[in-house]
Amino acid sequence: MSNLRFEIKKPDEGIRSQLIDKINDLTKPKGSLGRIEELALQIGLIQQTLEPKLLHPNHIVFAGDHGIAAEGVSPSPQEVTYQMIENFWAGGAGINFLSRQHGFELKVVDAGVNFDFKADDPIINKKIGKMTRNYLYEAAMTRQEMELALQYGAECTQDCYDKGCNIISFGEMGITNTSSSALWMSCMTGIDLKLCVGAGCDNSGNILEHKYNVLKKAQENYQGDGSTEDLMRYFGGFEMVMTVGAMLRAAELNMVILVDGFIMTACMLAASCINNNILYYAVFGHQGDEAGHKLLLDYLGAKPLLNLGLRLGEGTGAICAYPIVDSAVRMINEMNSFKSIRVTKYFK
Amino acid sequence: MSNLRFEIKKPDEGIRSQLIDKINDLTKPKGSLGRIEELALQIGLIQQTLEPKLLHPNHIVFAGDHGIAAEGVSPSPQEVTYQMIENFWAGGAGINFLSRQHGFELKVVDAGVNFDFKADDPIINKKIGKMTRNYLYEAAMTRQEMELALQYGAECTQDCYDKGCNIISFGEMGITNTSSSALWMSCMTGIDLKLCVGAGCDNSGNILEHKYNVLKKAQENYQGDGSTEDLMRYFGGFEMVMTVGAMLRAAELNMVILVDGFIMTACMLAASCINNNILYYAVFGHQGDEAGHKLLLDYLGAKPLLNLGLRLGEGTGAICAYPIVDSAVRMINEMNSFKSIRVTKYFK
Repeated sequence: MSNLRFEIKKPDEGIRSQLIDKINDLTKPKGSLGRIEELALQIGLIQQTLEPKLLHPNHIVFAGDHGIAAEGVSPSPQEVTYQMIENFWAGGAGINFLSRQHGFELKVVDAGVNFDFKADDPIINKKIGKMTRNYLYEAAMTRQEMELALQYGAECTQDCYDKGCNIISFGEMGITNTSSSALWMSCMTGIDLKLCVGAGCDNSGNILEHKYNVLKKAQENYQGDGSTEDLMRYFGGFEMVMTVGAMLRAAELNMVILVDGFIMTACMLAASCINNNILYYAVFGHQGDEAGHKLLLDYLGAKPLLNLGLRLGEGTGAICAYPIVDSAVRMINEMNSFKSIRVTKYFK
Repeated sequence: MSNLRFEIKKPDEGIRSQLIDKINDLTKPKGSLGRIEELALQIGLIQQTLEPKLLHPNHIVFAGDHGIAAEGVSPSPQEVTYQMIENFWAGGAGINFLSRQHGFELKVVDAGVNFDFKADDPIINKKIGKMTRNYLYEAAMTRQEMELALQYGAECTQDCYDKGCNIISFGEMGITNTSSSALWMSCMTGIDLKLCVGAGCDNSGNILEHKYNVLKKAQENYQGDGSTEDLMRYFGGFEMVMTVGAMLRAAELNMVILVDGFIMTACMLAASCINNNILYYAVFGHQGDEAGHKLLLDYLGAKPLLNLGLRLGEGTGAICAYPIVDSAVRMINEMNSFKSIRVTKYFK
């Protein structure tokens, strides 16, 4: 791996049986709160306590532009990336109302947007470059740029953690980043690219064939060593590599990681290739309709909490799932036990 | 129908195209917020406004006991019904933490529990009787009792409405009420009873065959006219008929109705047989694992928002879905439009 090391522990299993006993003794038939019970167990393990808490949820949107946009793989013009950032500041995007609703502090990071923001704009400046190079012809970024992106991502998470956050969610803004995600997925899992390429935020299907042809050619042109790092570097977006670094640091700090849709799942895939223990910290929020997403989730053994047909990105699917995670923590802390109140225990 | 009339209007379609235009002009690819957009449209139609609001959410748990419990169709002893009511008061049941989490006022109604509550207990007294009769041998209730239950249910909803509530959720507590629900479902839809009977809150499957045999005999013994009213009366629980009345009044008052799992869906089925327009007001919260639930939802053309493997009852699945409904209302009120901010519209 790069110079940046991530040391992620598998949560100690010693507390598992106590957690299960506590959950099973709450006043409900055993298992009858389904996924909420599973989450309570997972978070109890992550936090190593019978009384888990969710503190200061943060949502970070990493934004970046992609050289591959020149090939017309998205119907959206590249200018939408920075325009949407201005919309985030104005509080009027999808992710804004969801962050307000669920009490998330929202941060926007310029990982490499093709726009000159002003020094006092409300954006965290981690710009690696104005956009990645066009991976149809050359690597999207240098090895040095990739390592810097990982480090910057880790710093963003560290900053949240230092301010008391223990649950973090990630989103992205970057026109054409479903293309990078499809390539990461295909190259890192061995699944045929055809099954990994979807329509992105465009559901008209008009450009799907063209998109596939461009990406197929890019995959054929690739001459690297096939390592996770090299694939991240070659096809990645700055915002995606930064997310990988942010995720890895979050797991290192025992934080709960909410994973959004296809692009964020591709980042979690890359992170898990670097350190597979990260999956103990991941809560998958949403299964979108993007063609490859279900396959990728299956590959990771992930069962997302929601399936609401979202395909907006920005991390909206992860934040929508937050109340269910919150319910899990409330359940284990707030419900009475059969020991504490007179209710005939229904089942052993 | 009974003496109690419910006049439920199909929401006026005049506002539909304005609602769709408003939703499509929000700063996101068209349709990219999936089910959240569908909900915004539904609630805009119900409330006949481009600026819908959710006010004072209420959750009512109707509780009642069933004579059929004598046949051993549930592994839970009947005493659990009143014990759980005491747990609701203590604030320690599943529905309590969820109501607190999502800002619901929780009300518990004694529709017919086999227990003598004290006059100052925090329960709404609508007791029809101590329990229904055993429908293996005779009708569960008289026609008069059924009409009273419908009326009481309607009064409970009216009381919430009068205090400013416009979104209401229902749950139940009544040992053996999945049995009544299976019979309502089979008799009202024509679906074979075998496909309607599930394990209830017991997932061991130990009593499933016995439960089916008892219910099959009850269905064979039934000699009534097959009308919705007669079926409700014959197999119903007091708490279920009361829920039907409460749902019908809610639709009459243009309230959004959150529908929980199998039992509440069976109540919505009965309500829809009485007045099919009620379905315009229904938001289905959760698809449980109970065998017949998916079939019943398909019959009603319903697509629940969540599938979290819940089988607790109490209305937990409906309340878990509330944040998504809230998101829909926030989306349409809080997002910027392409008209109001400089973002290149991605698609027509």
